[in-house]
Amino acid sequence: MASTLQDGVKALLPDPPQGPLQAYRARASFSWRDLLLFLEGEELLRFKRTIFEALEGDPLFEKHGDSALPLEEYRALTFLRCKRVCEFDFLSLADMIQAPLRVQTFLDCLGMYDWSLGTKYIMDILIFASAIFRSGSKRHILYTQKAFNMEIFGCFVLTELSHGSNTKGIRTTAHYDPGSQEFILHSPDFEAAKFWVGNMGKTATHAVVFAQLYTPDGHCHGLHSFVVQIRDPRTLRAMPGVMVGDIGRKLGQNGLDNGFAVFHKVRIPRQDLLNRTGDVTPEGTYVTAIKDNRQRFGASLGSLSFGRVSVMNMSVTNLKLAVCIALRFSATRRQFGPSDGEEVPVLEYQQQQWRLLPYLAATFALHHFSRSLYVDLMELQRGRKRRDRGPQHAEMDREIHALASAGKPLASWTAQRGIQECREACGGHGYLAVSRLGHLRDNNDPNCTYEGDNNVLLQQTSNYLLGLLAARLQDGTPMRSPLKTVDFLDAYPALLEQRFCSPILQDSWDPEVGLAAYRWLVCYLLHESDRKLRQEKIAGSSDFDARNNAQVYHCRPLALAFMELTVAQRFHDFTQQPDVPPSLRGVLGRLSALYTVWSLSSHMATLYQGGYFSGELVGTVMQTAIVNLCSQLKDDAIALVDVLAPPDFVLDSPIGRADGQLYQNLWSAVLQGSGVLERAPWWPELIKKPVIGAPAPKL
Amino acid sequence: MASTLQDGVKALLPDPPQGPLQAYRARASFSWRDLLLFLEGEELLRFKRTIFEALEGDPLFEKHGDSALPLEEYRALTFLRCKRVCEFDFLSLADMIQAPLRVQTFLDCLGMYDWSLGTKYIMDILIFASAIFRSGSKRHILYTQKAFNMEIFGCFVLTELSHGSNTKGIRTTAHYDPGSQEFILHSPDFEAAKFWVGNMGKTATHAVVFAQLYTPDGHCHGLHSFVVQIRDPRTLRAMPGVMVGDIGRKLGQNGLDNGFAVFHKVRIPRQDLLNRTGDVTPEGTYVTAIKDNRQRFGASLGSLSFGRVSVMNMSVTNLKLAVCIALRFSATRRQFGPSDGEEVPVLEYQQQQWRLLPYLAATFALHHFSRSLYVDLMELQRGRKRRDRGPQHAEMDREIHALASAGKPLASWTAQRGIQECREACGGHGYLAVSRLGHLRDNNDPNCTYEGDNNVLLQQTSNYLLGLLAARLQDGTPMRSPLKTVDFLDAYPALLEQRFCSPILQDSWDPEVGLAAYRWLVCYLLHESDRKLRQEKIAGSSDFDARNNAQVYHCRPLALAFMELTVAQRFHDFTQQPDVPPSLRGVLGRLSALYTVWSLSSHMATLYQGGYFSGELVGTVMQTAIVNLCSQLKDDAIALVDVLAPPDFVLDSPIGRADGQLYQNLWSAVLQGSGVLERAPWWPELIKKPVIGAPAPKL
Repeated sequence: MASTLQDGVKALLPDPPQGPLQAYRARASFSWRDLLLFLEGEELLRFKRTIFEALEGDPLFEKHGDSALPLEEYRALTFLRCKRVCEFDFLSLADMIQAPLRVQTFLDCLGMYDWSLGTKYIMDILIFASAIFRSGSKRHILYTQKAFNMEIFGCFVLTELSHGSNTKGIRTTAHYDPGSQEFILHSPDFEAAKFWVGNMGKTATHAVVFAQLYTPDGHCHGLHSFVVQIRDPRTLRAMPGVMVGDIGRKLGQNGLDNGFAVFHKVRIPRQDLLNRTGDVTPEGTYVTAIKDNRQRFGASLGSLSFGRVSVMNMSVTNLKLAVCIALRFSATRRQFGPSDGEEVPVLEYQQQQWRLLPYLAATFALHHFSRSLYVDLMELQRGRKRRDRGPQHAEMDREIHALASAGKPLASWTAQRGIQECREACGGHGYLAVSRLGHLRDNNDPNCTYEGDNNVLLQQTSNYLLGLLAARLQDGTPMRSPLKTVDFLDAYPALLEQRFCSPILQDSWDPEVGLAAYRWLVCYLLHESDRKLRQEKIAGSSDFDARNNAQVYHCRPLALAFMELTVAQRFHDFTQQPDVPPSLRGVLGRLSALYTVWSLSSHMATLYQGGYFSGELVGTVMQTAIVNLCSQLKDDAIALVDVLAPPDFVLDSPIGRADGQLYQNLWSAVLQGSGVLERAPWWPELIKKPVIGAPAPKL
Repeated sequence: MASTLQDGVKALLPDPPQGPLQAYRARASFSWRDLLLFLEGEELLRFKRTIFEALEGDPLFEKHGDSALPLEEYRALTFLRCKRVCEFDFLSLADMIQAPLRVQTFLDCLGMYDWSLGTKYIMDILIFASAIFRSGSKRHILYTQKAFNMEIFGCFVLTELSHGSNTKGIRTTAHYDPGSQEFILHSPDFEAAKFWVGNMGKTATHAVVFAQLYTPDGHCHGLHSFVVQIRDPRTLRAMPGVMVGDIGRKLGQNGLDNGFAVFHKVRIPRQDLLNRTGDVTPEGTYVTAIKDNRQRFGASLGSLSFGRVSVMNMSVTNLKLAVCIALRFSATRRQFGPSDGEEVPVLEYQQQQWRLLPYLAATFALHHFSRSLYVDLMELQRGRKRRDRGPQHAEMDREIHALASAGKPLASWTAQRGIQECREACGGHGYLAVSRLGHLRDNNDPNCTYEGDNNVLLQQTSNYLLGLLAARLQDGTPMRSPLKTVDFLDAYPALLEQRFCSPILQDSWDPEVGLAAYRWLVCYLLHESDRKLRQEKIAGSSDFDARNNAQVYHCRPLALAFMELTVAQRFHDFTQQPDVPPSLRGVLGRLSALYTVWSLSSHMATLYQGGYFSGELVGTVMQTAIVNLCSQLKDDAIALVDVLAPPDFVLDSPIGRADGQLYQNLWSAVLQGSGVLERAPWWPELIKKPVIGAPAPKL
């Protein structure tokens, strides 16, 4: 029985191909197969394989250097692939509701293949359809069904040309006309054009549009969302009054068509108001259960956490691919050596390890965090469906909102920097488009911006923490949260008195030492942020100015440090669980220790400044711990990459293939490019010699 | 007379167009025109205008979203533009030799337009032709002339598929055959294919090729360079035995055709050996004035400083354009505000200032440095021509080599990070291809790699400093250098005893205080690097291992800190010159102070760790100084950008135009894109509804 099971697992996870990476694989301290099974479980791995094999088996998914294709071609391909993915029917509607990890795994797989496809699918099915599901009522269910069957194609329409982060400044209006029982959607001018909308450029037939709702009495009830048909699904022609178009090429994700729309007095039926939080009667009276405009707006945007957790996950996926490529490259690229003629893999250099291995550790830590936060979020949503709207639910909503609002910046920035480091660590070959590192960087880049600009979002998290502190200072409310991420702060006066002490200053670094330092750091930054805000107000600043002047060196690092601690703590707790197989404890512990100490090292100045660190030695110990952990993880790096890497077809990088035949693969890819050895068609231009001074500019 | 002169200057530098940027322009503390004239001088400004007007007046230079064009089209355009630039005859041969700043200004202008064009021109005229000029002798002068007339097109061929940084590992061979008096050029296998060569992909007819020279006695004399014809200039067909092709799309600079070549026993005349450092007699005897292989190799690569200074300059140019775009955007983009309905330009937010203004200061500091190092280098080369090869000359060569080797990493990384920050600071609109920030980032990226990988190059600089220290420790040789960049180190024992003291800890920050801290920092890092190397050797490490294990936290930050100090010091000295007009002293002083303190702040941990800083206050003072300087520079930012910005045609970004009409320009650019409002040609695919479950993957 056991051997059958093992055979099954071996068939599911076959040995990697022989080749130059074998030396590293042989030196690994653990079995990559065991770790992969432990992290993902056999069921999800089978699901993944089904998806990857379906893609690889279908010529539609064969790549053509897609990101360099003419815009129209890449979009056509992406649309067809999106349709094919629907046809494959990987996810049932039941999965969507009951198997959130299956949904996340499915999106990971699409994104690893290409985020243009992933976001196109997400925008349509997950964002458009679920916005209707969440904000609408029974009368809108038909739209959701049609979206799932691809009878219509959807987009989610919030931002305008002149308003992004400040969503309250949205200027599109929806005036209710009781005569015809219609809303009249209108863009006052081109600056209020809806802009940046995914799927709107060429594909979408329907849109969930946010607009300021006005009743006939002239009263504005704030932002509401409406289902609006923008194109005829039979012809893809724009509907009358809707000027809808494409915003053009972006730095990446060009398979996705982002668009704009200007509405000129477009009439839509009253029923197409998504009426979960507020409705208008046929006569034109506004009715709602939530009296406060601001709160209603909050309720309608509350589900933004989902988007942010998704972006975290997208970022982690990109980082996974980049570290796979860069580490396999580093293990096979040899350069210099102790003597002439004897060159060593660049992964043997301490500096190369230090550039890449912390990002490998970050990948595992952030992967675990984004997945676990996703599970928390699903739990929250289940509570919402059970109408479990008690104070505990609201607190968890706030906590998850705070975690998603800083988690997205942390993950997207870590990925962005990590991919850039990977690109540079692969030297010139990393600059070749075929290596895919540029594609990953360009596709990851918008993660820093959409679903909330990173710097703006961090304020949500620092405000959350400062709010908890204010309540404690004001009326002694203990600092506690449902997921316990803030509980340590309750002891902040005592924590602030702590100083660094490690029983023995040795080469190893106990993750607990790093976590303790982080707890002090977050307390310190919280305390300093609070002090800075008070100072500003005493000096006469308005609330607005005080907040703005406390970001750079106070609230911003506070939010980031809190987030890093939360990620590090969760990963550490995970590695300490009793069900971790003993053979995996070593490598997981080293990854956790490295992520913690490396992240913490970016705050070393503050640790010294605030007095937690003192003396020369502690800094040295920390630095030594980082390079030692890197060195200890170096021989595990390729096996860890085998855990993360999708099949070669999906990884799609000749310098990162599993067989490690770096030069053969690269050479082969280059030779098979288009017209590689052909003479340039413009060759006669070289023969026509230039006439120096011919066009004679006025000198 | 004065008024005529003034009228002339006004005609040369007309007022910027009226518009939303006027408010900031009116608040500037200085005249942008005065600063521009002071920095560049009227002659160079006229030269610049001639170039820009010639480009703008010629439809060939009209852009078509070039970087997204099919590879062949973009290359054809770039080749034609390169030819047209030759025809324009902006630079005379005399300029090339006598007016180095004119040459640099010319390249700046090409690069601001598009670095694909700039590098194509540089590779051909400056690198290929000047390599022949420098490494050859009279018998090669014809090649140089033909290159200038574009009768042939050149490339410079060093790196191979499996060897980049380690140039000594180059495996292409050149065996001398006395029978035919030819060299036989040969690539032993595809891993020794020449690779990454600019202009080689499609254009070059001739190449300067580096290969291991063998004489008939079987002796290898190390790397030498040869002129090799690789294509027929009349047909652009490859020469027999040369397999030459294109390496394909890169992350950027796709107008430049990078290529590869495999040589199969290609015979070239004996005379085509570039014989400045060594020659082979007709009979096959090797003759040279430089006996040591290593030294001869050094001599042939010694001119790499020129390439590195050029890359510094390319990086600064990219950063200039990016800060222009991001700051004009920030001064016109309004988001949020103290109350509803009243929004403020995002440049008013402290955080936005802190994200962007240090990069504006860095642009000015690095611009000054790269220009002044270029002047030093030209001085050095004039000395070389005068056969001034005394010890002072050799020392200056070494010093400039050290400065260029760390200057290139500092400038290219500052630009890379700065452009990314600019992209993010422009939010979604910065992610549109039309904003050009992606183009700048992608074109700047290879600056981190070519002419020496940044991390590898930094070792040249730390080795230089460690070498000086070793000489001082060994036999008391004072630490001095011709350009005086290292002279402060001679007092290192006393310097190391210094501690931070500012007469009054106030909100302002005297640049001298920052420079003093930097001097301590460099001494500290030098001392620590030396100690680390000794420690490693005592622990039994080989020289090779000791060096490698001392990079991350020792030699690497040493090289960077030394470089930052040198840049900051030179810029500070420049702002203190007596000929600085009084009206400009304020703004230049603030730029210098901001660059110094902002750069220094990245070393705050080390300043505390080493004991130069102590207590909480000093860190706070430093941070306060940064945000205060940003705030003081905020109202000057747009005028400073007016100093840096090329005409709108060259800047080529609707979100960064001089009129500040952000939304009008962006909207107009989007609407004029290709097929913006057209229905997608693949629309029937949307009507063919997917058949869910149709291709039925095996689930």
